[in-house]
Amino acid sequence: MTNQLDSDVSLRDFQTLIRTMYFEKDAERGVSGTFMWLMEEIGELASALRANNDRENLEEEFADVVAWLTTIANVAGVDLAQALTKKYGAGCPGCKKLACDCPMSEKP
Amino acid sequence: MTNQLDSDVSLRDFQTLIRTMYFEKDAERGVSGTFMWLMEEIGELASALRANNDRENLEEEFADVVAWLTTIANVAGVDLAQALTKKYGAGCPGCKKLACDCPMSEKP
Repeated sequence: MTNQLDSDVSLRDFQTLIRTMYFEKDAERGVSGTFMWLMEEIGELASALRANNDRENLEEEFADVVAWLTTIANVAGVDLAQALTKKYGAGCPGCKKLACDCPMSEKP
Repeated sequence: MTNQLDSDVSLRDFQTLIRTMYFEKDAERGVSGTFMWLMEEIGELASALRANNDRENLEEEFADVVAWLTTIANVAGVDLAQALTKKYGAGCPGCKKLACDCPMSEKP
């Protein structure tokens, strides 16, 4: 199969790709069941970050977390690209600056 | 400030935006400190998914999780678009099909 994604990735294309690949299973598993998989991947990402000795594995774990998060967005009917644009498209949601100058103790 | 993102989002553009907005703070906080923020957002996402009564909040929580994950990728020096293309660009990493036919019990 040819690569379905360019080296850059449109988040909408990625969400569609994940939907095409997994939606039938995802819907059957539901939000809670899918969240368990996300948590497993979060654990694997933590482990890879902590070990910090296998670059390829670290990249895979980031990819897996994004993929499972996208899967949950599909089941919940959320458009990730739209959600990101709305919250972060106009700069930091806290201070509204492009380079955030919120106090360090405050989000984000 | 004008909106920095189109209604679709290039993952590379988003990672650059998050870097511009937050990298100085992110680098100071480091991977572990930033991971704590990601976990807080994961909890808020779980809460929003469970309540399932506030669409706008649910979208925000998805956006926040993607943003904190992207922040950690910046600190760890991982290009998310490249990581996704490598792992998912050629279909399901398990069965290599575009519409996954891996057994339900197996990843993914």
